[in-house]
Amino acid sequence: MNRHGRFISLEGGEGAGKSTLLAGLHDYLAARGVTLLQVREPGGTALGEAIRAIVLDPAHPDISAESELLLMFAARAQLVRERILPALEAGQWVLCDRYVDASYAYQGGGRGQPVERIAELERWACAGLKPDLTLLLDLPVATGRARAAGRGAADRIETEADAFFERVRHVYRQRAEAEPARFRVIDAGQTPEYVLRDALAATAHLFESAA
Amino acid sequence: MNRHGRFISLEGGEGAGKSTLLAGLHDYLAARGVTLLQVREPGGTALGEAIRAIVLDPAHPDISAESELLLMFAARAQLVRERILPALEAGQWVLCDRYVDASYAYQGGGRGQPVERIAELERWACAGLKPDLTLLLDLPVATGRARAAGRGAADRIETEADAFFERVRHVYRQRAEAEPARFRVIDAGQTPEYVLRDALAATAHLFESAA
Repeated sequence: MNRHGRFISLEGGEGAGKSTLLAGLHDYLAARGVTLLQVREPGGTALGEAIRAIVLDPAHPDISAESELLLMFAARAQLVRERILPALEAGQWVLCDRYVDASYAYQGGGRGQPVERIAELERWACAGLKPDLTLLLDLPVATGRARAAGRGAADRIETEADAFFERVRHVYRQRAEAEPARFRVIDAGQTPEYVLRDALAATAHLFESAA
Repeated sequence: MNRHGRFISLEGGEGAGKSTLLAGLHDYLAARGVTLLQVREPGGTALGEAIRAIVLDPAHPDISAESELLLMFAARAQLVRERILPALEAGQWVLCDRYVDASYAYQGGGRGQPVERIAELERWACAGLKPDLTLLLDLPVATGRARAAGRGAADRIETEADAFFERVRHVYRQRAEAEPARFRVIDAGQTPEYVLRDALAATAHLFESAA
């Protein structure tokens, strides 16, 4: 457990329903009296949002895999230090739309950056901070992309081919298998109500063990 | 030696006279028939210039040391792959206004980031590329800052205290001592003509060994 607060990260591919679930979780936790900080990656700080604008901009089509990985961790290092750690220390809960698992999935699985490289960055850039709970919204790639297709202009990463997102999904599922105590895999093919129900069930132990 | 071209980096603190020397070197090399790519760090690519705008912006006073280090290497990884390596492979010479030694000096010496961390980033983010020659313009901190003071608004890093720049200078000189074959330390307290003369003398062996 992280200090006095709880740290929940939400992961998943395109069209998995993260935004809908975030809203549901937010309302539920607020109703239970939890003071909640909700942030997104990359972003969540002035620096991070500036980095987000660069890294998702389709006008930078040729960003090297190495640069993309470094930019994601630059944003994350700032987010952890400037917002997440202070919130947890103040007893707040933190709900983060993507966290370090996303780098293993997208920059590792998707772009082929070595897992050891990502693990080394995680070691020092994240100040040792791990989520108490990671909710993985899992969905076949074709289903997710069909859902996401109606949303308007795709960002630089969303324009990747299906094979990229298959590798992303594979790494997410691998990581969930390797850390079953931290991960909860949720079938994102269910209705939003059932997805929320599963997510809320997964948060129960966080209340039980709270101070 | 790097492929067919030669790679020269120029390092030094505030007010050391880098810009003047760059112009002199550029003219000399062009007159000798060298096809030259001149770039600066952070920057030199569309991505790198966008990162530069963030990292030197006084509006981001609280960038963590970790994020600053990662941003510098994100810009550098792109510069190496997109511009420096292709130029060297095409037989061009590359003149770079700061390179990886600047991260050891500023983010290492200045900000206290561990040298092992920087060395590990150098290993994979720079694709193994080392300069054939690094010219270090060395000057007492007070002298350099007095010279730079007349230049207009300071960027985020230029606003640091003297002690920061003393650490930067110390690391630069340490690195020059540790790699005497690559570094040439030039007394930047001399007139610009003598600084250029020393720099040109240091480039002589690059011509001798050229294919």
